[in-house]
Amino acid sequence: MTPPVDSAGLPATEPVNWGISRLGQGLTDSAIRALSKRLAAAPGLVSFAGGMPSPDTFPVEAFNRAYERVMATAGPAALQYGPTDGFLPLREWIAASLPGATVSPAQVLITAGSQQGLDLIGKVLVDRGDPVAVETPTYLGALQSLGQYFPKWVPVDSDEHGLQPQRLQPCLRAAGVPPRGAKLLYTIPNFQNPTGRTLTEDRRRALVQACAQEGLPIVEDDPYGALDYAGRTHTSLLSMAPEQVIYLGSFSKVLSPGVRLGYLVAPAAIIRKLEQAKQASDLHTSTLAQRIVHEIVRDGFLDGHLAHCRQLYAARADAMDAALRKHLQGVVRWQRPEGGMFLWLELPPGTDAQDLIEPAIAAGVAFVPGAPFYAADARANTMRLCFSTASPAQIEQGIASLAKVLTG
Amino acid sequence: MTPPVDSAGLPATEPVNWGISRLGQGLTDSAIRALSKRLAAAPGLVSFAGGMPSPDTFPVEAFNRAYERVMATAGPAALQYGPTDGFLPLREWIAASLPGATVSPAQVLITAGSQQGLDLIGKVLVDRGDPVAVETPTYLGALQSLGQYFPKWVPVDSDEHGLQPQRLQPCLRAAGVPPRGAKLLYTIPNFQNPTGRTLTEDRRRALVQACAQEGLPIVEDDPYGALDYAGRTHTSLLSMAPEQVIYLGSFSKVLSPGVRLGYLVAPAAIIRKLEQAKQASDLHTSTLAQRIVHEIVRDGFLDGHLAHCRQLYAARADAMDAALRKHLQGVVRWQRPEGGMFLWLELPPGTDAQDLIEPAIAAGVAFVPGAPFYAADARANTMRLCFSTASPAQIEQGIASLAKVLTG
Repeated sequence: MTPPVDSAGLPATEPVNWGISRLGQGLTDSAIRALSKRLAAAPGLVSFAGGMPSPDTFPVEAFNRAYERVMATAGPAALQYGPTDGFLPLREWIAASLPGATVSPAQVLITAGSQQGLDLIGKVLVDRGDPVAVETPTYLGALQSLGQYFPKWVPVDSDEHGLQPQRLQPCLRAAGVPPRGAKLLYTIPNFQNPTGRTLTEDRRRALVQACAQEGLPIVEDDPYGALDYAGRTHTSLLSMAPEQVIYLGSFSKVLSPGVRLGYLVAPAAIIRKLEQAKQASDLHTSTLAQRIVHEIVRDGFLDGHLAHCRQLYAARADAMDAALRKHLQGVVRWQRPEGGMFLWLELPPGTDAQDLIEPAIAAGVAFVPGAPFYAADARANTMRLCFSTASPAQIEQGIASLAKVLTG
Repeated sequence: MTPPVDSAGLPATEPVNWGISRLGQGLTDSAIRALSKRLAAAPGLVSFAGGMPSPDTFPVEAFNRAYERVMATAGPAALQYGPTDGFLPLREWIAASLPGATVSPAQVLITAGSQQGLDLIGKVLVDRGDPVAVETPTYLGALQSLGQYFPKWVPVDSDEHGLQPQRLQPCLRAAGVPPRGAKLLYTIPNFQNPTGRTLTEDRRRALVQACAQEGLPIVEDDPYGALDYAGRTHTSLLSMAPEQVIYLGSFSKVLSPGVRLGYLVAPAAIIRKLEQAKQASDLHTSTLAQRIVHEIVRDGFLDGHLAHCRQLYAARADAMDAALRKHLQGVVRWQRPEGGMFLWLELPPGTDAQDLIEPAIAAGVAFVPGAPFYAADARANTMRLCFSTASPAQIEQGIASLAKVLTG
């Protein structure tokens, strides 16, 4: 049967079958994205909702100098296709820069931010129904990215010191996962998104051991590790168990998220599969971005630059901590983070942070409700506050506004 | 049971379960990639194997001017996170620049090269076993990217004028696909990779109609359309049937592949799903790259620049055509392409191009065998020659070397 044609002899608009795949059907707009659209329509707010690094930390001059040097010395090469695994000098720099870990450049794959690292891990490791353990709450973007492949989420209990290693096995068994039957554990040990929490050294050792007992690969996501306000270096799970860990790193929080440059470090057993997935996904990451960032970092620029970032974020964390003590002491619970960009607020039991969004916007402040950060059993009386992009004065003002909403 | 521990109390190297997913098991190194590694170890060749644009076409000065303007006027914004769908002024420019098509910026999604467009389409549309029609031969990277999702390939016969529309239905039925039962058709209408062939105007109309009868969405991949040596514009399938087509465009062959910047245009029915898949895959494409490229193209730079590219590639196509007539007339069959970067060679029946790789390298010339470009029923007596990166003198020399190998 021929479809109707229009006067030009072409088929009239005929519904074609856009049959969405199962993966496609599982995709949704993130709660944060919907909130972002709402906030874009309400300018002038003090926003703790973002999750973006402060533009005051972006080293524009260093980018300019590096761009000039790259284009003056290797212009055409910087604009040409490059290898899937990435620009070798950058991979060498990354391999040499990971504290405590002995890593070969052959174990390093450059990615379009660590978000792409998560997608590649999902592609290569996760089949529908595979048990994937996560701390609770955890990074929303990881739930979204790994979630594309329909894992069975197994939340593992966490407290103010991060994930509780001794709860790993009980949580897996309670979820019906047989011994050595889970696919991977995803964790952010340093200044976690969304809670700002940091795993203690003792727990790191215990976690690596608990995962080894389960034969469980660990995905260690570490975008914030370099932002310890005291300049301390925390022992990476990678350095403790290199054969057991895929480590995700990023230049987003220490140089610029807009260049979309991250990397993963994986054992020989798995790195080539991840590289093949990268090739099928986008061939390779921007040659130009890789060469610029390598030019910036190669001579130790990050040492001084990170000191500046830490100082800026520490002052903002202090401002938020002080404002919370002034306006909300005894009403909400929080920990002052020791690094990173986030602070987690526990509201009085029975409060639903979602219900506070519009009153807060009306009062001139924005936040992200905590519930979307839970893989299951969301606690509605929580919210994430990001203090990276507001000045100390704005932070004081925003928390004062939030207090009015919370205390009526 | 506790695993053995080393003297530091950490678990000794314990095999963790790197259980590769079904998707991961399906991934392989591409034949071209393996060949690239072989060629890297044999310098000094005349290489027709690459598939890369000529670095002589990269507008380094235009990039420098654009970079300076972007950073001087919007430095921090260019280094910050951006929206998933892309930088609005660039999306507006793309929507306005597509000849003959009425496209809203809301239908445009910026991607990390059109390779990522293919991955997103695979994610959102292709379930295991879904019939996907392709011309024969077709782009290896599409077989690799869409192949991640395990389609059932349905090759559709093609000849020197490209895909044969009247063969669509018979090929689908012969493959056991019921009417309106296929998922999509993937095609490169202009100066196709690998054959250099271009679909005639009549066939475009017939193809759109044949696909409408099948309710079949079309993925129109058009990286080379702007490289018509005579400067002609070919009617896009998108402009003929906007509700039926996902169009893939790229700046890789007209500005720089190293910035990894492409786009897709899709009907309202599907664009949001593709955007959600993009968000889960890598959040968004480089803000810096988008702003630089927008700054380059916004004032009509491409008009003059494309004239330069076309002239350069036309001269190289002519050189290869002349060299083939001089050295291999009557031995091999080919068409002089009217645009793009590729020429397809049919060798005498019974010749396997794979067997010629090492003799050709020994003779100082490299090519890509044709077989990997077939989804099924590969014709081994074919090869792809890319003339974009060799000078006319090198082309003459390389074809002379190839002739010695072919004619003994």
